[in-house]
Amino acid sequence: MFEEILENINRKHPLVHAITNYVTVNDCANMALACGSSPIMADDINEVEDIVSICNALVINIGTLNERTIAAMIKAGKKANELGLPVILDPVGAGASKFRTETALELLKQVKISVIRGNISEIKTIDQGSGTTKGVDADSNDTVTYDNLDQMIQFTETLSEKTGAMIAITGAIDIVADKEKAFVIKNGHPMMSRITGTGCMLTTLIGAYCGANPDNLLLATAAAVSCMGLCGELTFEKVWAQKEGTSSFRTYIIDFMSNMDVEILERGMKVEIR
Amino acid sequence: MFEEILENINRKHPLVHAITNYVTVNDCANMALACGSSPIMADDINEVEDIVSICNALVINIGTLNERTIAAMIKAGKKANELGLPVILDPVGAGASKFRTETALELLKQVKISVIRGNISEIKTIDQGSGTTKGVDADSNDTVTYDNLDQMIQFTETLSEKTGAMIAITGAIDIVADKEKAFVIKNGHPMMSRITGTGCMLTTLIGAYCGANPDNLLLATAAAVSCMGLCGELTFEKVWAQKEGTSSFRTYIIDFMSNMDVEILERGMKVEIR
Amino acid sequence: MFEEILENINRKHPLVHAITNYVTVNDCANMALACGSSPIMADDINEVEDIVSICNALVINIGTLNERTIAAMIKAGKKANELGLPVILDPVGAGASKFRTETALELLKQVKISVIRGNISEIKTIDQGSGTTKGVDADSNDTVTYDNLDQMIQFTETLSEKTGAMIAITGAIDIVADKEKAFVIKNGHPMMSRITGTGCMLTTLIGAYCGANPDNLLLATAAAVSCMGLCGELTFEKVWAQKEGTSSFRTYIIDFMSNMDVEILERGMKVEIR
Repeated sequence: MFEEILENINRKHPLVHAITNYVTVNDCANMALACGSSPIMADDINEVEDIVSICNALVINIGTLNERTIAAMIKAGKKANELGLPVILDPVGAGASKFRTETALELLKQVKISVIRGNISEIKTIDQGSGTTKGVDADSNDTVTYDNLDQMIQFTETLSEKTGAMIAITGAIDIVADKEKAFVIKNGHPMMSRITGTGCMLTTLIGAYCGANPDNLLLATAAAVSCMGLCGELTFEKVWAQKEGTSSFRTYIIDFMSNMDVEILERGMKVEIR
Repeated sequence: MFEEILENINRKHPLVHAITNYVTVNDCANMALACGSSPIMADDINEVEDIVSICNALVINIGTLNERTIAAMIKAGKKANELGLPVILDPVGAGASKFRTETALELLKQVKISVIRGNISEIKTIDQGSGTTKGVDADSNDTVTYDNLDQMIQFTETLSEKTGAMIAITGAIDIVADKEKAFVIKNGHPMMSRITGTGCMLTTLIGAYCGANPDNLLLATAAAVSCMGLCGELTFEKVWAQKEGTSSFRTYIIDFMSNMDVEILERGMKVEIR
Repeated sequence: MFEEILENINRKHPLVHAITNYVTVNDCANMALACGSSPIMADDINEVEDIVSICNALVINIGTLNERTIAAMIKAGKKANELGLPVILDPVGAGASKFRTETALELLKQVKISVIRGNISEIKTIDQGSGTTKGVDADSNDTVTYDNLDQMIQFTETLSEKTGAMIAITGAIDIVADKEKAFVIKNGHPMMSRITGTGCMLTTLIGAYCGANPDNLLLATAAAVSCMGLCGELTFEKVWAQKEGTSSFRTYIIDFMSNMDVEILERGMKVEIR
């Protein structure tokens, strides 16, 4: 299913422009490199148009937003739109502060976003225009479960129609959908939430996959989500076997991505199309 | 001694707001997660009040301070005071520049600080209003030793009385004291100073421990200091046995924290009450 | 050849002031510590003069430049010049945006730079005043090869004469030269480009080596380049043997630096003087 997606990354070695937070930026850069793309982080308003012009995708992550970088995000986003490049938005912590929620909504208003990737609380905040995120983690009242899956898929498709963006909700069960088609993905491991940055890394990965597959964004996003989750599973097995901890988990999840190929992915993916 | 402190962290899963430097921020976030808390890094003045309002503690670290973030630190600190939340200050490099020294003193003036954690040179700078820190490391003329221990405990208690904050001085021998009671802690390993961020990580850890134990800040701080030192010892043993180096040390010290429990801590702690 | 260079680092424990990017700053700090120096990152214009005054070298890296930090770079650079300290410039991504190119040139105009370290595309941009860097990576049309080596050495020496700075071009073959003498260094491994920050770490390392060897900057720079490349080779062997990936590579390259000594370096170095 994902063969062509991965081939395109290896063949095109896409360049990804990321305007992101300073907490997980190094992990995002190393994850982008691990998957076969090349990242460039640049957030000054004087250069974002030049930088995005040499890139294949733009990733906007509001993890440590400030007024200076928000202006640069909007400028870069508009330029990416002009050039027809995919723009991926990670509304980190939307709902945790009015400033974050409003910035996420403003970005959606001013920039045509291709894919929004967040946890369920962040995505619900986008939908409702306000929220109750517990910091940067999902609120446990909001989880996608087998019981509410149909309803959540409906919600995701409706939000996709409303925003014009594909939606990737990640958690125990992931949903990737546009307005008419949804992928339900069961890869991943709870230990992924015991380190910072797995969400941010995934968003960067989606940027790389979409950058190499501009005509196939939904499938590219589903591939990235499944691939990241699978790396999480493989990493957990290794950390468990070696009796290591969360920081080794952080190291190995990037290691596994750097050794990923289509055989490993197709064997391990747990993807269902609805 | 520390059983209840650790239980409260596991039970409450405290949320820690950190305004910190961009050098060690990722390690701080991963250390906070490893110990069972959840970190949120946010430094824009437009959101720090919202963010601190959903948190259990605020950590202020001046490692890469600038005018924009200093204003946010003060605003967040005042809000935390209003809400009665513990505020932990790490005066990184106080004494190395007039700007750092003055910022640390200004923070102490404008915000009621619960705990100050620093090396001996930074803490002496706080006491004297000026200093001679060698960069971000302690000046070797300033070390706490067995010979000057009584005198240093006296100094720490007096400074606690003067500032109204509990004081944690870390080095070969650590002292954690308020105005009348001191813990002398001999956990730790010299290799901890061969990586960046062990001090910053400890300060974040104190934030997590205090956030879960707001009525027992002195004991919570002592527990965090002992626990971090013990992780340093266990990490050194592993790195030495496996003939690895400083970057593996950085990985494993977080690993050990993520696997810490009260049995390991009580068995390994070297804590004396004075 | 490099015995005295390494001895001076161990003996002097130089303090390195780095104004650098937030992507790789943690790796740079840990690499500086691993080699036996002590880093301090400080970028606010109110303190850079104080900070550089207690240091042995200044490293300027424009990886995530912005207007605020550019002003601080210039102020710190002028102060370092006044104090006679070595200043190392890493023109990350020069050529990728007009803003980067112009900032690099402005720094060269306003500050006397001792050593410029970059990939071939960045260095050519410095020479020509404009460029076509592919993001932060070298353009593959620009590689130093055995065929064009003599010509590239000539280019490097001429650029050194023109700028007044020593030049270190790193890639498959590295050239370190002033206007009359060149070192050709064949240490290194292609896997070094599969993680972010090996270039930035090397520039910080050059800062440490030059800080401890202010009267011998060319030899110090060549030592740093060879040493970093050798660590890359040793790391690749370990990662390959253990079937690990790129993030383990990142960990071990700092590990190897932290265990480096003159015997290992002299045995492994591949340095030729032209």
